[in-house]
Amino acid sequence: MMTVSRLDLADAHLMLTAARARATAIGVPMCIAITDDCGQLIAFDRMDGGKVTSITIAIDKSFTASAAKKATHEYGSASQPGAPAYGIASAIGGRLMVVGGGLPVIVDGAVVGGIGVSSGTPAQDQDVAQAGIDAFLAAQK
Amino acid sequence: MMTVSRLDLADAHLMLTAARARATAIGVPMCIAITDDCGQLIAFDRMDGGKVTSITIAIDKSFTASAAKKATHEYGSASQPGAPAYGIASAIGGRLMVVGGGLPVIVDGAVVGGIGVSSGTPAQDQDVAQAGIDAFLAAQK
Amino acid sequence: MMTVSRLDLADAHLMLTAARARATAIGVPMCIAITDDCGQLIAFDRMDGGKVTSITIAIDKSFTASAAKKATHEYGSASQPGAPAYGIASAIGGRLMVVGGGLPVIVDGAVVGGIGVSSGTPAQDQDVAQAGIDAFLAAQK
Amino acid sequence: MMTVSRLDLADAHLMLTAARARATAIGVPMCIAITDDCGQLIAFDRMDGGKVTSITIAIDKSFTASAAKKATHEYGSASQPGAPAYGIASAIGGRLMVVGGGLPVIVDGAVVGGIGVSSGTPAQDQDVAQAGIDAFLAAQK
Repeated sequence: MMTVSRLDLADAHLMLTAARARATAIGVPMCIAITDDCGQLIAFDRMDGGKVTSITIAIDKSFTASAAKKATHEYGSASQPGAPAYGIASAIGGRLMVVGGGLPVIVDGAVVGGIGVSSGTPAQDQDVAQAGIDAFLAAQK
Repeated sequence: MMTVSRLDLADAHLMLTAARARATAIGVPMCIAITDDCGQLIAFDRMDGGKVTSITIAIDKSFTASAAKKATHEYGSASQPGAPAYGIASAIGGRLMVVGGGLPVIVDGAVVGGIGVSSGTPAQDQDVAQAGIDAFLAAQK
Repeated sequence: MMTVSRLDLADAHLMLTAARARATAIGVPMCIAITDDCGQLIAFDRMDGGKVTSITIAIDKSFTASAAKKATHEYGSASQPGAPAYGIASAIGGRLMVVGGGLPVIVDGAVVGGIGVSSGTPAQDQDVAQAGIDAFLAAQK
Repeated sequence: MMTVSRLDLADAHLMLTAARARATAIGVPMCIAITDDCGQLIAFDRMDGGKVTSITIAIDKSFTASAAKKATHEYGSASQPGAPAYGIASAIGGRLMVVGGGLPVIVDGAVVGGIGVSSGTPAQDQDVAQAGIDAFLAAQK
């Protein structure tokens, strides 16, 4: 057997709170999802005014970041026409997200979960996701 | 045009907090989902130890209760062999849940959202969902 | 964060080998799947003559047993017409299996994975799954 | 009627063993799938550390290579913007993979199965898939 670490619900709430605060600060109501190391949903918030399409997109960004152990914007670069991973965006029934806004949560070199954000521009989404990551990492010290 | 009322994120958090408290009281870590009047997810919590299968089931119970404007256990009775709604359980790709644990949130006769709970027995799930409803209705007074 | 234990690939191969041996002994070529504590596939074998339909069924039985922390035949009893979980069989796009042959792997009270078997009768499937469990548990001593 | 040749489970295990050895040699834990001439799964291994997203992707690469009788990276070229197969990547619910790492197994000009690999770069995935093919072909002599 192997032993792994993963986010718990308290971690997820801490991340959601920080991400919502950042979303409010930039004036964009967001959908925000937190997943565990396997890509399974732990917690989710749709802020008042967040987009209905973003529910699934935020969950799938977080799924991708945690289960593929890679930020979704990195897949964006790698999957451009002519690049090696071109076409990966439609994998897993379209759940493999290559649009920015999904980030893995990494502790001691291991992925313990992920965060996915959607409703703004990909840059705004990623900014809000990073706020969630920063708050979690600050709390580990 | 029409005007509709629906749960907001603060309402959803109030319901999640009450439902988690009841789940803790009965000793069963639950997955709990809150949806709006359209059946779309507002907020979700998987308590530590909640089942992975219950992520989808809780969301779909809440979807069913709010979008079909009916408690899921009522569909359970109505969909027994020989009953009028027999077979409805596999509708909408299996999202139409007929197992207890999904309740609509009703204000002044109108459905404004729903709550879905999963990981315990259907009776436990429904009990925890009711705790979420009760807390919301108490806060309206 | 929380820390969890899960099956690794060596554990999965040990279980597959034992399950295949039992399937050969009873003369039924089987599909056999091993999943981790989140329900995600670790390893799979379709024995020569195993059924094509059983590929998905074995994987989904193992998914259900590990992710719902319950043997699939227990869901079979609980989901009969008139029973509390009636209708659960079509949940999660039909992945929630209520037919015998899926068993959780439990160590020190925690589910660390699952095994799912299909191609025989449900009783034969469960018998072969149990052989996989027995071999794993014997190796832990 | 026609007679077809296809990989059996012993062939699949031989290929998995060789592919795992190559993955270990290059230091990338992989998901590896072997399918038959119909594209149906025969055997699968997720090496410890292989990505959860790669479970489906490896299976779908192998499905594509064997059922479409073409290496997935060839579809990558053919499906670029402006090329004849543009858009094929989202076919079959996204199962048609155009990212490298899926190879057909060809004996006497006929496709008898396939191998699909995922978790590394497409070039690494294809390299590991080729190791599986090479071992199988060497064993035929």
